Amino acid sequence: MSDVLFVSVALLAGLLSVLVSLLSYRAVMKADEGNENMREVSRLIQDGAVSYIRIQYRILGAFTAVFALIISLAFGELGPPIAISYIIGSTASMSAGYVGLAVATRANRRTAAAAADGGLNPAFNIAFRAGSVMGLMIAGIALVGLTALYWLWDFVFPAYDAPVLWEILTGFSFGASTVALFAKAGGGIFTKTADMSADIVGKIEQQIPEDDPRNPAAIADAVGDNVGDVAGTGADIFDSNVAAILAAALLGATLDVMFTIPFAYSLLPLLIAGLGNIASVIGIFFVRPDCCDDPGTALDRGTYATTGIFMVLILTTLWVLQIDLMIAFSAIAGLVAGVFIGITSNVFTSQRGLFGFKPLMDMVDDSEKSAANLILSGYSYGLLSAVPSVLGVVAALVASFIFGITATSPGLGVWQGGIYAVAISAVGLLATNGFTMSSDSYGPIVDNARGVIEQADASEEAIIACDRLDAAGNTVKAITKGFAIGSAAISVLALFAAFIESVDALLAFEISVNLADPFILAGAFIGALVPVTFSAFLILGVDRNAGRMIEDIRRQFDEDPGILAGTSKPDYDRCISIATSGAIRELMPSTLMAIGVTILTGMILGLEALAGYLGGAVIMGFIMALLMSNAGGAWDNTKKYIESPDYNHDDPRYEQIHDNAVLGDMVGDPFKDTAGPSINTLLVVISLTATLFLPIIARLNVWFISLF
Amino acid sequence: MSDVLFVSVALLAGLLSVLVSLLSYRAVMKADEGNENMREVSRLIQDGAVSYIRIQYRILGAFTAVFALIISLAFGELGPPIAISYIIGSTASMSAGYVGLAVATRANRRTAAAAADGGLNPAFNIAFRAGSVMGLMIAGIALVGLTALYWLWDFVFPAYDAPVLWEILTGFSFGASTVALFAKAGGGIFTKTADMSADIVGKIEQQIPEDDPRNPAAIADAVGDNVGDVAGTGADIFDSNVAAILAAALLGATLDVMFTIPFAYSLLPLLIAGLGNIASVIGIFFVRPDCCDDPGTALDRGTYATTGIFMVLILTTLWVLQIDLMIAFSAIAGLVAGVFIGITSNVFTSQRGLFGFKPLMDMVDDSEKSAANLILSGYSYGLLSAVPSVLGVVAALVASFIFGITATSPGLGVWQGGIYAVAISAVGLLATNGFTMSSDSYGPIVDNARGVIEQADASEEAIIACDRLDAAGNTVKAITKGFAIGSAAISVLALFAAFIESVDALLAFEISVNLADPFILAGAFIGALVPVTFSAFLILGVDRNAGRMIEDIRRQFDEDPGILAGTSKPDYDRCISIATSGAIRELMPSTLMAIGVTILTGMILGLEALAGYLGGAVIMGFIMALLMSNAGGAWDNTKKYIESPDYNHDDPRYEQIHDNAVLGDMVGDPFKDTAGPSINTLLVVISLTATLFLPIIARLNVWFISLF
Repeated sequence: MSDVLFVSVALLAGLLSVLVSLLSYRAVMKADEGNENMREVSRLIQDGAVSYIRIQYRILGAFTAVFALIISLAFGELGPPIAISYIIGSTASMSAGYVGLAVATRANRRTAAAAADGGLNPAFNIAFRAGSVMGLMIAGIALVGLTALYWLWDFVFPAYDAPVLWEILTGFSFGASTVALFAKAGGGIFTKTADMSADIVGKIEQQIPEDDPRNPAAIADAVGDNVGDVAGTGADIFDSNVAAILAAALLGATLDVMFTIPFAYSLLPLLIAGLGNIASVIGIFFVRPDCCDDPGTALDRGTYATTGIFMVLILTTLWVLQIDLMIAFSAIAGLVAGVFIGITSNVFTSQRGLFGFKPLMDMVDDSEKSAANLILSGYSYGLLSAVPSVLGVVAALVASFIFGITATSPGLGVWQGGIYAVAISAVGLLATNGFTMSSDSYGPIVDNARGVIEQADASEEAIIACDRLDAAGNTVKAITKGFAIGSAAISVLALFAAFIESVDALLAFEISVNLADPFILAGAFIGALVPVTFSAFLILGVDRNAGRMIEDIRRQFDEDPGILAGTSKPDYDRCISIATSGAIRELMPSTLMAIGVTILTGMILGLEALAGYLGGAVIMGFIMALLMSNAGGAWDNTKKYIESPDYNHDDPRYEQIHDNAVLGDMVGDPFKDTAGPSINTLLVVISLTATLFLPIIARLNVWFISLF
Repeated sequence: MSDVLFVSVALLAGLLSVLVSLLSYRAVMKADEGNENMREVSRLIQDGAVSYIRIQYRILGAFTAVFALIISLAFGELGPPIAISYIIGSTASMSAGYVGLAVATRANRRTAAAAADGGLNPAFNIAFRAGSVMGLMIAGIALVGLTALYWLWDFVFPAYDAPVLWEILTGFSFGASTVALFAKAGGGIFTKTADMSADIVGKIEQQIPEDDPRNPAAIADAVGDNVGDVAGTGADIFDSNVAAILAAALLGATLDVMFTIPFAYSLLPLLIAGLGNIASVIGIFFVRPDCCDDPGTALDRGTYATTGIFMVLILTTLWVLQIDLMIAFSAIAGLVAGVFIGITSNVFTSQRGLFGFKPLMDMVDDSEKSAANLILSGYSYGLLSAVPSVLGVVAALVASFIFGITATSPGLGVWQGGIYAVAISAVGLLATNGFTMSSDSYGPIVDNARGVIEQADASEEAIIACDRLDAAGNTVKAITKGFAIGSAAISVLALFAAFIESVDALLAFEISVNLADPFILAGAFIGALVPVTFSAFLILGVDRNAGRMIEDIRRQFDEDPGILAGTSKPDYDRCISIATSGAIRELMPSTLMAIGVTILTGMILGLEALAGYLGGAVIMGFIMALLMSNAGGAWDNTKKYIESPDYNHDDPRYEQIHDNAVLGDMVGDPFKDTAGPSINTLLVVISLTATLFLPIIARLNVWFISLF
């Protein structure tokens, strides 16, 4: 009985999210599109985004088709259902990305128009509503997709047992994560390619202003912001959320089988995620521009409401279901860790600091010494920023494990129960992602609206209103970035546990990932190299891709002097196409490498070494992601601070100091927007590769050993 | 019987090294000291080095005394012998550093004089002889110290069993490694403080040339080269060598006890190290300037001779002793890995590249784009440079383990035999450190000689001779740097295994460092943070320390205008004193933190988590060390290439391109000379802390758990 109930609640909650998302979309679309100027600028960005999506999805579609074919052939009898799950997972992620991008690129001019007509409050209302389209959509689709698939294989074609069923659903998660890797890392290469090329040819070579419409890369640059921040982050969170639910379900299925409990623990993650969705939908309505005197406070109010409602819901539900509340505490521990990571990352990247420890102000001082000092201190503080985040994750990990092994409901209170609770902490952290992602997507929308309004000669008040909206967006964005990294880390830890559980199930004995075993230690070393190599390839990829685009911009200027004179239009689409296909060309080898090395490690060194490999990858990857995201953020904000009125612009060396800060920001750009945040997704992809392909890797390993 | 034989051979080989070192010292001292100019410049450096040593050793002496007291109190009955070993280890390392620094700062003017009088060959002869003083001294003292202590506690006061005896000798290694940390990391902060301050006040503010004697930091800068490259690297290699021997001995003692073999495996590492010393002493005599037409070839000849002789010696000896030759192969596997790491690191930092893959030339291209591109590509190639090195270590690890478990001598052929073979590979890698370090120390000597000769208005031919000597020195230095990092990594892996073996012995059951256990995973995460935090502190420490020194240089210029006019002498000693005491002040907290966190992790999370902690630290630390050393080296060489005649200086943008390259070099300086190479030593220190303090940590853990 509990299975139908749990799945129904999850499905309905998912449908509710999707419905509210669509209603918000309609509401946003009805708003005034602003004057001719606003519409023109915004339309170019909108069309550019469509070009990007068209090219990327064509390549992704081909990739998905090939992979689906491989899967359906490699897995024997289970091949077709896994391939179908995989295709649906890819499609779900792509659809969510599409919706987010569509609404974001349409909402910017409407936000701008509202700011120009009615000021702060109406503009905030539209921007946040538009953000919630993306937020609720990804949260909703995750649940609808997973429950629909569960229903399909359990009720409609009831051919599979619970553990096998979750293996089939791993295909969904794998699909979501490969798409997310392209969206996040590919989007990251795209946006930085455009940014760098526009600056080098436009600002440096031709000395035209930033964002000048004569620059053929200008639209690609604006599209890049949406591509990276809206579609990329959305796909990233979607994928972490699905992975967390799936890992917890896989571990729960083991508990269910061990203790012959019908589906309680395997389906509980879906239920918790459903409760999170409900809390998010309600939380959205707490964000009212007229509630508070500041957009930031309004967003905070929504966060508190969502979190509070979610806690009440989960505690009540578990109490009613007579499941030990320790499981609820695990979910809450995850949530607390996520918030902690977001806040502490912000200490290293905002001028506020904490208790007099102000890294950003040190970096401002270093900008006055030399660019080298600034680079060195940004790098050092980036390293240090990993400390609280790692400790936060470690605390959540240990606490939820202890909660799980001390819980008293049937099936809990054992080692596996503890590990299950760790996975639940990841589910808890991501349960309210509908709300988190809504306020995150709000950021790039108001950022874009500010750009639109500036080029559309709007009133001074309208610009000030947009600035205030933007400031609130930046703070949220900084916190979400940490949150996204933390949630991915905990999800990956859950996947790591799920992988080990799957190996145990497959080999029918408990494996030990004993680092004292040279093979396993070797695996851990190789795993640690994966995020290292991947980041290097991404950064070098931006460099190479920018080289191609710079060449094309120069060619356009050479062939048609009318472009610089402003009499003829540059070919914006050409730049978008170079950035898109170049990004995928740079990314494809690293992605295939990551998947290939994962399979090869398991084949050559064995399944226990493969577990060591995942462990090495997550330790190294988590820390590198924090280093690069936070160092990049800190350099960016150092530059912003030096440009702000808070800084003394009368210093005779101001120009030099500003140049130093600009250099820091340029170094930080691919750190924070390309390599850093992509590592999360990479970790999810390789963990899922190991889990999904486990039976095949095991057979390859047996074959490889037989060679000797 | 075998114990007396093994120990005697080791002791005699050690004494032989020390003797040859002293004879070389006498020979070098007899050489002509050059003209008045050369003597004056060189004397200032020599006196500066004495100032540095005096200040540093005073603080280190106090530190050693306090720590010795703590040890003798904390270890109960074993306290005094461990404390004595510890004091002797510290003193041995300090003496070796002193000798190296003394000869290096005296040999530079003699090399310069020989180059001026006789040209290339005599100058090469003196420089290499002087280098061999340091090389053979550190190799010899390691053996003399260890065997003398063994003799003391085994024959003179035969109160201890073999395993306890090796625990007492761990104190020697701990002493060597704490001194090495101060020598390497403290020296690294010293040299970069001086370098940065001299540049900022001298070159930028006052626009006086580099190395100008009017700059109060000029001598500190020159001393810094010797302090970092001679004393620092020497202490680092000394410490890795002792740690490798000790780890293998600890593991060997377990085998001896398990299979009741009298002392064969525990003393074999000493014997192997002794054979390496003999090979090094003979190898030194193969380096003859008149043998080849190029100093580099002469050095290579010595390397081949030493390696060949060592291989013959170890194969013959093990064959005579009827120990399975697989153990010799393990030692050779380590050696091969070390050379492989050195060579592949060089691919990323030299213009030659490999198979058309030329990272350095890409970086030269990036310098033409912008400084940001150069920083980004240097960082990326630094990351990628970790790949072959890690794979080299992994291959040595897995190969030697397989050799050990397939060996057939009594006591081998089991899991512990495999682990023992891993430790032997570290011993093999470091056995010929007497020769390796000789050719490495040659580098800074000729580098300094070149500086002396330039300021002493010598002939053009003499300068060219010195340039050729210097070029050979740079190649050797690049390879040794990789070698040092690789050898430390393998030594730390051996220590890691020794730690686990000690825990097994203490708890009387086999522990498992199972990463699937949340506590152990938590330990691994915390361990990974240690090198991360340590590097950040070192880099920020350079920044802060340079701030203090800059202030003092400005004060000197202000208070005495005669300094800039060249009529009065600046206070060189004041700068040396600031750099030295500042370096230790910046380093002390990080060192105590590393030791403290190690003990706390074991106390709170338990001994198995402490093993996870060491594993996390070595994985993260090894990769970070490679990233920072190699990125730094690549930036340095990019600048050198752009300054060389190979590069087109007529480019109208040359000045900008050169500025970009200089910036890369400035960022790279603390990477490659402070943080990167210090991580090795840090890893040794924390591994030894865990091993040495194990009984105390175990008691603290029991107490901590009893609180709940």
